[in-house]
Amino acid sequence: WSIVENDGVQRLERVFTFKNFVDALAFTNKVGQIAEEEGHHPAILTEWGKVTVAWWTHKIGGLHRNDFIMAAKTDQLYNAPS
Amino acid sequence: WSIVENDGVQRLERVFTFKNFVDALAFTNKVGQIAEEEGHHPAILTEWGKVTVAWWTHKIGGLHRNDFIMAAKTDQLYNAPS
Repeated sequence: WSIVENDGVQRLERVFTFKNFVDALAFTNKVGQIAEEEGHHPAILTEWGKVTVAWWTHKIGGLHRNDFIMAAKTDQLYNAPS
Repeated sequence: WSIVENDGVQRLERVFTFKNFVDALAFTNKVGQIAEEEGHHPAILTEWGKVTVAWWTHKIGGLHRNDFIMAAKTDQLYNAPS
């Protein structure tokens, strides 16, 4: 994960790679599911073979402890056997 | 749709709005499905209440007639009763 500033707001960003578009989109949906469960929503960029996830806390316009927890959960989804 | 230049590559981009994250992600999946069917893959940015779709042709590093067709199909998905 890198801390990337976007329009003055710090975000945690990481690129995850996949072997095709379908696998990338499946990961997007997994991330979307934990986002819904936690009521905390990232930006998810889905491309062929690649998903870029960005976590930040809208309310404070930056990073909160919860963003780091969600980033760790996102890693777990990526590393878990599918 | 707007023509937006990204790293020297022209892309067709449009923002679609939704009432929540789940509806946005459902649209991302619909766009992903037509992308797979046509073997032509966009960049899809999913956020709370918002999906940004970008079409371009990787092989020519810009816009092809097919991108405009896919943009029109994306609009149809958005306008169709769900």
